Amino acid sequence: MVSDTRRMTDLSDVTARMRDFTDAREWARFHDLKSLTLALVGEVGEVAELVQWLPTDQAGGTMPGSHLRERLGDELADVLLYLVRLADVAGVDLGAEALKKLATNEERFPATHYRSVAPERR
Amino acid sequence: MVSDTRRMTDLSDVTARMRDFTDAREWARFHDLKSLTLALVGEVGEVAELVQWLPTDQAGGTMPGSHLRERLGDELADVLLYLVRLADVAGVDLGAEALKKLATNEERFPATHYRSVAPERR
Amino acid sequence: MVSDTRRMTDLSDVTARMRDFTDAREWARFHDLKSLTLALVGEVGEVAELVQWLPTDQAGGTMPGSHLRERLGDELADVLLYLVRLADVAGVDLGAEALKKLATNEERFPATHYRSVAPERR
Amino acid sequence: MVSDTRRMTDLSDVTARMRDFTDAREWARFHDLKSLTLALVGEVGEVAELVQWLPTDQAGGTMPGSHLRERLGDELADVLLYLVRLADVAGVDLGAEALKKLATNEERFPATHYRSVAPERR
Repeated sequence: MVSDTRRMTDLSDVTARMRDFTDAREWARFHDLKSLTLALVGEVGEVAELVQWLPTDQAGGTMPGSHLRERLGDELADVLLYLVRLADVAGVDLGAEALKKLATNEERFPATHYRSVAPERR
Repeated sequence: MVSDTRRMTDLSDVTARMRDFTDAREWARFHDLKSLTLALVGEVGEVAELVQWLPTDQAGGTMPGSHLRERLGDELADVLLYLVRLADVAGVDLGAEALKKLATNEERFPATHYRSVAPERR
Repeated sequence: MVSDTRRMTDLSDVTARMRDFTDAREWARFHDLKSLTLALVGEVGEVAELVQWLPTDQAGGTMPGSHLRERLGDELADVLLYLVRLADVAGVDLGAEALKKLATNEERFPATHYRSVAPERR
Repeated sequence: MVSDTRRMTDLSDVTARMRDFTDAREWARFHDLKSLTLALVGEVGEVAELVQWLPTDQAGGTMPGSHLRERLGDELADVLLYLVRLADVAGVDLGAEALKKLATNEERFPATHYRSVAPERR
């Protein structure tokens, strides 16, 4: 589990830094919705490769300092960076949308009803 | 592009809310690394379906209030929610890792050298 | 396991039929490498959604006639159809490449050495 | 486009060879539906990385003998091998399902009606 002492990371900060990073290299012209989605897919693929053969009894989490945790940290960061960039290009306020979706899900899946019942697929 | 007036969204807040959401429904036992990666893949697949047939001249962004922007907001939120949940279960501080990766990338791709040159793959 | 009595399905036949299907609808202009890869991703995402919450003891296979087998048959077919179409547009002889890769893998992972040892990642 | 002189590749042959390859290494116990779907995702991710930054005017196909075609051939083969393996474990006759789906699509999207109109999403 994540330490309670970690510092805050504001999604709009990460978004702004990715935008600056992109602009400074004049890479914005490569960053259309399709290319960025493909880049996101590539990074998610790397996450999948890290966990695909994990035995069930090792898939529950990672050990602090383990190679797997370090590799996952690296790849999940890549996923987030392309995700915020894609949202920025799409004109989507990712943080606001996530909070809105959380509220929707809290209503859609009442805790008393869904306790311990696997989420149904839509 | 995203408005400059949007409010802050702290990644650790989203993480904590997803953890509470999960715990209240006793869904943590479904949330191993492999299942959550598959859930992430499913949501990324929905994003792909939204952009796959976009003509090149419409792939640069979205119009405010358009159906596409609304749909992308919804699906990108799902991607983020599973991403923070996966990072939480993996013991990864997603925000810290993203900022670290940004710093690495800034050094690895010096702006003066890479200006306007497509990023090479590893 | 698949019945031994199933009829043959030639990959180049499926490829030719997908090409005819595409041409008859004048859809070839939508079928560039990036759009088709995104379409493939969308279908793989649907497969992921079918298996993501399967408990470990039900992930070993499917029951004949089960809803899951039926749904997987449908989605895996979609994956194959976009895969052969992508290969066709890429100028790749998918069947020949697969047989070549199989031969490579057989040499790269000698059975005597790798027996029961999980495949290492590259 | 693919040469007309290529030899036939029967999907059930590829399936049987993958099964033999797996059995000879006693890897079947790693090959549950979730692990194989993740492996498929990993390979699709590699395809995405090959095409993600392609400029639009180079995304229409590949040049014979080009590095891109060679790399795509290699990665698309990996996708097919995990796909047939996943179908085998799922008890799905992949070839039969693909032909069935083709027939369904031919009826669902009448050529006269859909000519030149982008396929709608479901």
